[in-house]
Amino acid sequence: MDDATLARFADLIVGFGANVQQDQIVAIGCEPGKEHLVRALAASAYRHGAKFVDVGWFDPYVKRARIEHARPETLEFVPPWYGERILALGDHRAARVALAGPSAPGLMADLDPVLVGKDRLPTVREGIRVVNERTTNWTVCPCPTPVWADMVFADLDESERLPRLERELLHVLRLDEDDPIAAWRARADTLVTSAERLSARRFDALHYEGPGTDLTIGLLSSSGWRAARFQTVDGIEHMPNLPTEEVFTTPDPERTQGTVTSTKPLVLSDGTVVRDLVVRFEAGRVVELRASEGGETLETIARTDEGAARLGEVALVDREGRIGELGTIFYDTLLDENAASHIALGQGFPFMLDDEEKHRSNESEIHIDFMIGSNELSVTGITRDGDRVPVLAEGRWQI
Amino acid sequence: MDDATLARFADLIVGFGANVQQDQIVAIGCEPGKEHLVRALAASAYRHGAKFVDVGWFDPYVKRARIEHARPETLEFVPPWYGERILALGDHRAARVALAGPSAPGLMADLDPVLVGKDRLPTVREGIRVVNERTTNWTVCPCPTPVWADMVFADLDESERLPRLERELLHVLRLDEDDPIAAWRARADTLVTSAERLSARRFDALHYEGPGTDLTIGLLSSSGWRAARFQTVDGIEHMPNLPTEEVFTTPDPERTQGTVTSTKPLVLSDGTVVRDLVVRFEAGRVVELRASEGGETLETIARTDEGAARLGEVALVDREGRIGELGTIFYDTLLDENAASHIALGQGFPFMLDDEEKHRSNESEIHIDFMIGSNELSVTGITRDGDRVPVLAEGRWQI
Repeated sequence: MDDATLARFADLIVGFGANVQQDQIVAIGCEPGKEHLVRALAASAYRHGAKFVDVGWFDPYVKRARIEHARPETLEFVPPWYGERILALGDHRAARVALAGPSAPGLMADLDPVLVGKDRLPTVREGIRVVNERTTNWTVCPCPTPVWADMVFADLDESERLPRLERELLHVLRLDEDDPIAAWRARADTLVTSAERLSARRFDALHYEGPGTDLTIGLLSSSGWRAARFQTVDGIEHMPNLPTEEVFTTPDPERTQGTVTSTKPLVLSDGTVVRDLVVRFEAGRVVELRASEGGETLETIARTDEGAARLGEVALVDREGRIGELGTIFYDTLLDENAASHIALGQGFPFMLDDEEKHRSNESEIHIDFMIGSNELSVTGITRDGDRVPVLAEGRWQI
Repeated sequence: MDDATLARFADLIVGFGANVQQDQIVAIGCEPGKEHLVRALAASAYRHGAKFVDVGWFDPYVKRARIEHARPETLEFVPPWYGERILALGDHRAARVALAGPSAPGLMADLDPVLVGKDRLPTVREGIRVVNERTTNWTVCPCPTPVWADMVFADLDESERLPRLERELLHVLRLDEDDPIAAWRARADTLVTSAERLSARRFDALHYEGPGTDLTIGLLSSSGWRAARFQTVDGIEHMPNLPTEEVFTTPDPERTQGTVTSTKPLVLSDGTVVRDLVVRFEAGRVVELRASEGGETLETIARTDEGAARLGEVALVDREGRIGELGTIFYDTLLDENAASHIALGQGFPFMLDDEEKHRSNESEIHIDFMIGSNELSVTGITRDGDRVPVLAEGRWQI
């Protein structure tokens, strides 16, 4: 990627995604290997008037050394200043940028998944609190790297992989438009409208049917639907994900029932890949979890706390987005979840519920999305009167 | 460097330099480009029983983006959690490892030196406090990298540079010995004995004479001499520098007089190289500072606070060490200062003075060593009776 394109990429993330304001502190979360974009983001943030750019690097190879050599009983320890820094970012009304894209795929594959699951870093529990308090304007966006390109486009000639990944990311980020910000404003308006139409129906539950899937997810009476365009408590509009193609809500954590089969691989933040995941729920709780790869690590994570085995998010994705149509499996939740409808184990979004129901939102230290959407999946809304209303079929809105 | 050598390198730093204890938190300070050694250090620390390895990466290219694009009035801002983390490391009785070796030489060369001098990161003022409170067992050691090798051995064939740097570092770290730790114990014992001989003389001042140098440095009556083998408040012995070849003390900040010419280039922590430095002192204070390169940045730093223009350290290095004999200019203070006698502007070492004189140790946020030793330099001790006693001549102890 040439310097001008990289600067344009950074300006979209800083100026539109996180929407960095004059005099803000800007925290960037990334791994070694993403220096090129981090440095462009820092330059862009300072050009946008940032007071300070605080880059937090997390090296998965250091984490691997921990899992391999540390005493197992120490693996859950996190120094208190990790969480304190996140809370301080909230107190300072900072902006936050996290760079997605696997940086060390498969790095933990040969390690004991129970040990791998104990160390949740770079995720810290205080992160969820800051999101819910809406004190930071934040975004997660992809960073193209050679290791990621090698994973996604293994069947291409080596010299073509990174250029192809960069081209696809520029496309899904709408950076191939003359005015990417205008294009994003239009798409976000569409998603917000879809969310409003769904919210108006006040469904009691959604019924998912497809190959290996027969799942009913109960909704709360105030479960409204939203697109990923947020505002902070101070009214700063930001895009938590870039790209984003989803509308989502937080469900009733007690009323998920049935079996669901994932339709894309899931890459955990430590690089573990979970493939061919099948999950069975009873009364809202995971009672069975199978996978051809990575299942044990995910099982360990799903035992982190009571809420880790219940749903915190339900999201619907139509086929009009730019990701699904590529047919690429990116091995990265940010992109793959926006290619397909998905659900997430763990922490819900209490801010999406009314005051009476806030306490019923699922609570957990974790939040793990997995993809269940495909053109074969149909989603039906069940009204409070028991009527069935088609919502999504063959990847198209029916509502 | 093969994996076995790298593991041996890391074990010397962790097991002897920092002397990491069971259940300690270990903080590592480094820049992108040093991943290979950082990962080996993390593995070694966990093998030594560390509870957690907290790597703090600092990217000088992000700092450059700040100097270039941020508003000048924001350049001195440091987020409070930077200092709080260092203080917490002290509170937790952590171990600390910093990796020396320039990671981006000359990166700031074309920027306004006044602006460059305003941003002191990665140095934070709380670091000096934690050193003085002796609550952490710490070490600074070199990390070989291709960019460093290119700088030091520019006249060699490209393929020979890194291997040569690695070979010289292994030699000065005594890793070419069968038992490097035993070799270091013996050398440290010798340095401690030299320091004790010097302390016993209780000189009132030292007089330096050499090409471009005629300088007298007054000492305090309790200015004892030490080698860089320290103990924490809890009695953990550690080597603050590895390699180390110096004996040093903290002088009277009010009684330095005359002119001194540096004998080696000085590389500031931001990559600025200061060459051909000549400094004139009056009544302890820098009154003139000239250099053929980098002088303005150093002048800005010397104006940080009142103590930044006064001496905090005086160190003597004989020619029996392994660094001076190589004749290599490493462009890195850790190595170059241990090749030659040196002095430092800024913070002194109050813990080296008795209780009555502690308050007279120089106080500053900065501590910048520069090299003044050579075989042409003679150092004479002046006793409280005015007698002159040869201390160092032609690089050899006379005492």
